[in-house]
Amino acid sequence: MTLLRTHLGSTLRAARVAQGRTLREVAKSARVSLGYLSEVERGQKEASSELLNSICAALELTLASVLTDVAHQIKVVEAPTLIVVDEAAA
Amino acid sequence: MTLLRTHLGSTLRAARVAQGRTLREVAKSARVSLGYLSEVERGQKEASSELLNSICAALELTLASVLTDVAHQIKVVEAPTLIVVDEAAA
Repeated sequence: MTLLRTHLGSTLRAARVAQGRTLREVAKSARVSLGYLSEVERGQKEASSELLNSICAALELTLASVLTDVAHQIKVVEAPTLIVVDEAAA
Repeated sequence: MTLLRTHLGSTLRAARVAQGRTLREVAKSARVSLGYLSEVERGQKEASSELLNSICAALELTLASVLTDVAHQIKVVEAPTLIVVDEAAA
């Protein structure tokens, strides 16, 4: 099942890793616990809207850009599987 | 403060109203309580990722399309205010 928290977590994690920052640094900047951020990134915890804003701010990302990325990711996963039928082989 | 749950709620509510459906109908179809759906729509409760999927399915919307709408809404709110200076009047 496609879950918002899974894709939100992986997007936030990818952004942090791309910035070469540690969980500890970003958690401190966002004023959330390291454990909380780690669980959010792994899609194991639903981030509250307030703490999601703090994490986005710590990563210098807008909430809109994060959600746009997440929507794109989910769109790919939700897309119906394309079945290619090789008629020549039939 | 721009909150994800506020915009998610208003997007879900707008979709339901556009379909001419009641809270009761959609809550039943999504297998969530009427009170829960009402609180989510008013941005008073964070929807869990699982129940968000159920609500989207009940509304026949994909999660990706809902998130895209929410991202657009938030982008407008997050945009820096444009200050128009009327130089002619200066």
